[in-house]
This record gives sequence, C-alpha cells and structure tokens, in this order.
Amino acid sequence: MAKSARLSGFPERLPAERVIEKAIIDTLEHTFALHGFSALNHRAVEPISQLAKDGEIDKEIFAVSRLHSEGAERNPLGLHFDLTVPLARYIADNANDLSFPFKAARVQPVWRGERPQAGRYREFIQADIDVIADGELPGHFEVEIPLAVADAFSRLAPLGVPGIKIVVNDRRLLEGFARGIGLTNIQAVLRCLDKYDKIGPEEVGKLLASEAGANEEQQRLCLKLAAIESDSPDFADEVRALGVEHPLLDAGLESLTTLLRAAAERAPGVVVAQLKIARGLDYYTGAVYETQLIGHEELGSVSSGGRYDSLVTVGKKNYPGVGMSIGVSRLMAFILGEESQVRATRGTPSAVVIAVTEEARRSEADAVAATLRSRDIPCEVSPNAAKFGKQIRYAERRDIPFVWFTDGESGHEVKDIRSGEQTTADPDTWTPAEDDLWPRVYRS
Amino acid sequence: MAKSARLSGFPERLPAERVIEKAIIDTLEHTFALHGFSALNHRAVEPISQLAKDGEIDKEIFAVSRLHSEGAERNPLGLHFDLTVPLARYIADNANDLSFPFKAARVQPVWRGERPQAGRYREFIQADIDVIADGELPGHFEVEIPLAVADAFSRLAPLGVPGIKIVVNDRRLLEGFARGIGLTNIQAVLRCLDKYDKIGPEEVGKLLASEAGANEEQQRLCLKLAAIESDSPDFADEVRALGVEHPLLDAGLESLTTLLRAAAERAPGVVVAQLKIARGLDYYTGAVYETQLIGHEELGSVSSGGRYDSLVTVGKKNYPGVGMSIGVSRLMAFILGEESQVRATRGTPSAVVIAVTEEARRSEADAVAATLRSRDIPCEVSPNAAKFGKQIRYAERRDIPFVWFTDGESGHEVKDIRSGEQTTADPDTWTPAEDDLWPRVYRS
Repeated sequence: MAKSARLSGFPERLPAERVIEKAIIDTLEHTFALHGFSALNHRAVEPISQLAKDGEIDKEIFAVSRLHSEGAERNPLGLHFDLTVPLARYIADNANDLSFPFKAARVQPVWRGERPQAGRYREFIQADIDVIADGELPGHFEVEIPLAVADAFSRLAPLGVPGIKIVVNDRRLLEGFARGIGLTNIQAVLRCLDKYDKIGPEEVGKLLASEAGANEEQQRLCLKLAAIESDSPDFADEVRALGVEHPLLDAGLESLTTLLRAAAERAPGVVVAQLKIARGLDYYTGAVYETQLIGHEELGSVSSGGRYDSLVTVGKKNYPGVGMSIGVSRLMAFILGEESQVRATRGTPSAVVIAVTEEARRSEADAVAATLRSRDIPCEVSPNAAKFGKQIRYAERRDIPFVWFTDGESGHEVKDIRSGEQTTADPDTWTPAEDDLWPRVYRS
Repeated sequence: MAKSARLSGFPERLPAERVIEKAIIDTLEHTFALHGFSALNHRAVEPISQLAKDGEIDKEIFAVSRLHSEGAERNPLGLHFDLTVPLARYIADNANDLSFPFKAARVQPVWRGERPQAGRYREFIQADIDVIADGELPGHFEVEIPLAVADAFSRLAPLGVPGIKIVVNDRRLLEGFARGIGLTNIQAVLRCLDKYDKIGPEEVGKLLASEAGANEEQQRLCLKLAAIESDSPDFADEVRALGVEHPLLDAGLESLTTLLRAAAERAPGVVVAQLKIARGLDYYTGAVYETQLIGHEELGSVSSGGRYDSLVTVGKKNYPGVGMSIGVSRLMAFILGEESQVRATRGTPSAVVIAVTEEARRSEADAVAATLRSRDIPCEVSPNAAKFGKQIRYAERRDIPFVWFTDGESGHEVKDIRSGEQTTADPDTWTPAEDDLWPRVYRS
C-alpha cells in the first residue's frame, strides 16, 4: 500500500509542469543534434573507485548496494554525480567502436548524496555536450562548446528562459600566473579564487595566505588578476600590464583571446572573460565556463564546464575533451517561479474528449478515437456515459479544448468548449487548429 | 582518470544503437500521448519501506545511501524496481492536484539489485501506462490499456518489432475458481500457476499439493483451468463446463469476456485468454496481462501488467488502477540481435560536414553551419583543415552523406559522397532529401 512520501531534493513534476520540462529537454536535444552531437544515455551507476577523487566530491556520492547482499560487495557502486565521469569511462569502454573527435550529448538525471536541506537537489537533470579527441584536441572546440550552449539558450527564450552571459577563464592562464609570481600549490590557489563571489576579495586574500602561502604582494597580484573582466580580446593587455611572465600564462592568454574573438563574431555580447572563475572540479586543464541568467545572477551558474586533458587514457593513448553541462532542474526552478509566467496550455496531451452517449455504445466513441489517432490527433474517450454537461466538465477540468459527440444516425459534431461553438465534423478530415493540437508552452 | 569499467547487466548503447533505442522510446511516448496519457517522470528512489513487500521482491532492491553518512539513515532509500509503485506513491503525494481518472505514461529506467549474471538486467528501461481512478475504476479501462499497448506495438513494426499476442487472465477468476473448489491459500495457488510454463503441468500439480494443500481432484481442476486458451469470448463456456461455482469466478469471467469481445472488434487476433497466466506480483486484483512476440515466445513477456484495486489509499479514499509496462531494454536486446536486421543510417545526427579550406578561414565554414542550423539542418564543421580527401573520409567514417565546400570567391558546392555528385548550393536554400536529413532506422 503506497503512502505519501515526498523527499526533499527529489523534485517531481505535475503533468503541466512536465510539459514545460519536456519542452526544455526536447529543445536542448534538438539543438545538440543540429550541432552534430550524438545522443547517448549513460547507465546510472559507476564503480565507486571511478567516482571517488582526491577532491571534496566523494562526500556527495550516493552508494548503491544490494539490499540483502552477503557481506561486502567486491565492486561497490555509486550513482553518478555528473555526466562527465560516465562519459570518460564510456570512452574507455568503447574507444575502438567510436570515431574521433567524438561529439556526445546526454540529457539525464544525476545524483548527489547530500544531507536533505532546503533548496538543495539530490536528484536533478543535466544536459551535457562534450567533444573528445584521440591525441590532440584542437583549440577551436573550446570555442564551439560555449557557442553551441549559447545557441541552445537562445532557442529556450520562447520557453521563458532569460538571456545569458557565459563567463570564461583558462586554467593554464591561472596556473601560469600563479607560478609566474612564485606560488606552487596551484590547487589551493584555484580553491581560493573559486570562493571570490561568495566571500569577497578581502577574505580571498586571507585564504590565499593561509592555504597557498601567498605573501602580500602575491595576494595583491592574484586579486588584481581576479578583478579583470571584459568581453573584448583586449583583456590580455590588462593581464600583461601586471608584469607576470610564464609559458603557461602565454598559452592560456592566447587560447582565451581566440575564444573571445570568435565569440564576438558568432554570438556578440554573450561570452565574457572573467579571470576570477576557477571551477571547483580538479580535472579541468584549459578553458573553464560558467553561465549566468542576465538579471538573475543570484541563481548561480546554470551551465558550467571546461576542458579536461587527462580524464581518459586507454593504453598509451590520451583522450582530451571539452564540455559543458546545462542544469535543467535549476532552469525549471526558475521557470516554475511566479516571475517567469511560463505556463503549459494543458497537462494532458488529449486535444479532444469523445463523449459516450450510452455505455452500450462506447464502441462508437472508440472508433472515432481510433480514426483521430490514426491521423495523429491526440484524444481520449470519456470515462463514463454521464450527462453531456458532466462529460464537458471532464474536458474543462483538464483544459482539453474540444468535445466530440457521435450519433450513429445523424453523424458527428464537435464542440469548442471555450467558445461554445458546435459544428458538424468528420473524423476522417476534421483537424484542430495547430495551437490546440498538442499542449503548448506560453508566457501568460 | 577514467578506466574501462563495463558492468554486467547495465547496458549502454553505441551511438547508432541509441538512435534505434530513441526511435522506440519516441514511438512509445507518441502513441501514449495519442491515447491521452500524461507524460510523467518519477524520481529514481523510494523509501525502502514503500518498496519492501511481503512477496519475494525485496531481495532485488538496490539500497541507496550517502557514502559517508554518519550511522544509520532515518529514512533509508532504494532505487525503484518498477514504475507502478512510484506512480502509486505519486498519486498519494499529489491526489489533490490531479484530475481523476488520471492517465499516466512514463518511460524511464528501473533497477533490480540482482547478483551479476549473464542475461540479467540490473538497469533497464520500461515504458508504462496506467489509469488511476478515485473510487470506482470502470471495467472498460481493463480493455483500453492492452489495446493502447497493441497500438504501440503496431507502430513499432517499422522498427523491426514482430507482431504480438497479449495473453490475459483475471485474478478474480482464478481466486473464485480456487475458492470454489475449496482452496484457501490463494497466493500459493497463484505462485504455483505462475510456474506453469517453466516447469510444466505435472510439476505444478505436485507444487499445488505441497504449497496450497490441493488434493488430487483440486489439482486436476486447477490444471484443467490452466490449460484453457482462446481468443473467443466463448472460453467462458469451457470454464463453466468444469462445474465450479463462486461469485468472484462470475465477476472475473464477465470482465474477461467483455475484454475479449472488445478486443476482437478493435484489434482482432491480438488478445487471447490464457488461464494459466497469474503474474508474480501480489498487488493485482483483476485483469492480468502478458505479451509475447509472435515467433519469439522464448523471450518471455515483453509487456505485462494488470489491475490493482488496493495499491493507493489516501485517507478514506481508494484509488484503483490498471496498467501495463513495456520492456524497452528487452525489445532492444531482440532488435540488436542479428536476426532483426534493424539498423540506423548513422550514429551522428549530422547530415553535412562543412569542410574547412584553411584554419584561418574556419569562420566561413562556421557561418555556413549556422545558416544550415537556423534552417533545422543538422551539420558539423570539419575538425581540421586537412586535405579535402581526408575531410571526406571523416564524413564517410560516420556515414554522413554530404560534404560542403565553401569558397569566399566562387560560392559553395555540396558533394553527395555516396554518388560522388557535386553541385553548387546556397546555404539559404539547399535541403537534403528527407531520408538523409536525420538518422533513420531501417531493416537491411
């Protein structure tokens, strides 16, 4: 016997909400396909040994084990917490059957084993695209990924998703700069910078001292760098003006300059260099990306990612990659908020309810439904032969626009229950207006 | 660093295989929508207390717990093993926000925490439809569910799925018959009958004796009943001829007769009464269904379900339901077998590769790609400015039919690399043949 059992952090949608979520997912999958990304679907679990890293992330894993297993499992499993680690493992599993560079798209749930708390998801949907190369990954893919994401967001605009700003940086630039000023604990520097927006420059300075051993001058230079923000390739001049020299800094600057130049041409105003962006994950080695909804920056990044050069190695071959992940559940939280005024016309797919005159004549209504379905018109037959007024209310309660009346003798009529207009109709030819055929998402 | 880590029972698809799987899923979702089922998506986990039942099923649950949780969880979780239990709980969670009868469709993975063994899935995709009523569930829904499934399978035929036979029975019929001959341990009788195909009538007879306390006459009658099979409503006469009387038997016979009569009209030959069908799950209370692929009966049931009257109760209100589940992963196993000869035209969505003349002129190719994408033509830009022969081989290896050559001066040309034909083309107007636009599934 099922009991109500809502779980904090595991969102489920009502039918009309799911219409909106599905519209988002379909739009993302379609955009990714237009950009040539092959759709994949990863299994939900990975060996814990693949998920656990040096970083802090292992705290957030949901372990999976057979309920009545006898003793410890030989190969303990966990639910994946992102779609990058499963892709890397998938590449290692299937390298011989794939053609490289390989472009992959996935839209599916991920899980984080957090303690239940308000506002934190423990299951959420992500939409990821990645390019993986065998051997060398050309730098232009670091441009293509954010521009494909920008295209996807522009196609989400009719669903109520605001404009975006993609802020970018480069791990080589940060590492080169840090080494150029004499800092060597790069992971610590990145972790400190990653907290810039949360705790502010002053606290980051203190953290750089305590965590990365930075003296006052090193702190000053790091904070100067972190404050640089520009949508022009000229940002490089500001970095050069700080007088720091290192080959990795040069490589990062060149790569980020190329990215900004291409972005200015193909998606003007969308991509902005922001040198405080570091990203928490330790596997990034080149470009890193975060994405803000313009006017709703407080929501945090709705799409993030970066370049990772060392995530996949098979035998002696290295498979560098670059990718971004869109937080579908986070977008949904925004869209379902009152401010967005995004609605679905209905939660049921049916455009028509076929009324039943009397239970013994249900098969007449079934026949009309079969004909309409064969013509790709979604419909359902009334659950009972109640008075027509009650059958109309059945449709009304579901925002189904039409009710069909059938009479073996006198033919068929269809009623638009919004206008009350009722006309004769032939199941072989009648077609609802395009806006009424399927549930639609609109802004009220 | 990712290592190869295939896991038995957790299938993942190569890109061209996923094209086929996605075509199956899209077809099922589309058919369910045409029949008026609202698409839902359940969270992956349920409290173990909801999943664990008296039956044998609790052995197969994957428990989920935070990797570094401190002590025992207050509300231990498990991955759902079907989509009926989550629906029941969803109804209990959201009864006030739904309109009844409520028709729900879900296509998503489920998990069974089995020991790894050949041929057993531990993660697989199911496609479920259910109707849930508040109070009374009219019997015609026991007809609609299998006929919607039959419609779905007929729409899968172009993807290589064979014709089906839906075998049906009714739990009331079985229970009434058992009680009518003096047996009282109904669960035991059902468990014995459920093994009919596996172990044969003789062994079932012995089991009925040892498990349900059946004497020789009771065994004989049970086996007589179990042998009845017919696609005609007249099967009821064969049951009556056994001379057993019980009100539940009458109710079950009437319901099953109605089902066969409607099915004979709307989907002739598809639905067959088979009175040995019992289904393992203990929550069924009326019609039960199994589905065989004609000519491939050895694969077992590819779609099963039944009516459940007591799965959901909220306060004093009861919510009876009826539903069926299609085993998408099981269908995929058949379709990916050699016999089916089902193939996808390609694993990448791109219909066109835009060649790059030289790296400095990549933006010309990017511009063509952007124009084609704005016209809903999937394409990708060549990863490098290699010799054109090499760029054509890039497309060939992926079965991408067209390569686009662009030249700032002399305009554009597009080559069909199968025929070698090369023609001038305008990115604002050129359109590939419909068969080439998107990956397609076909039988070779």
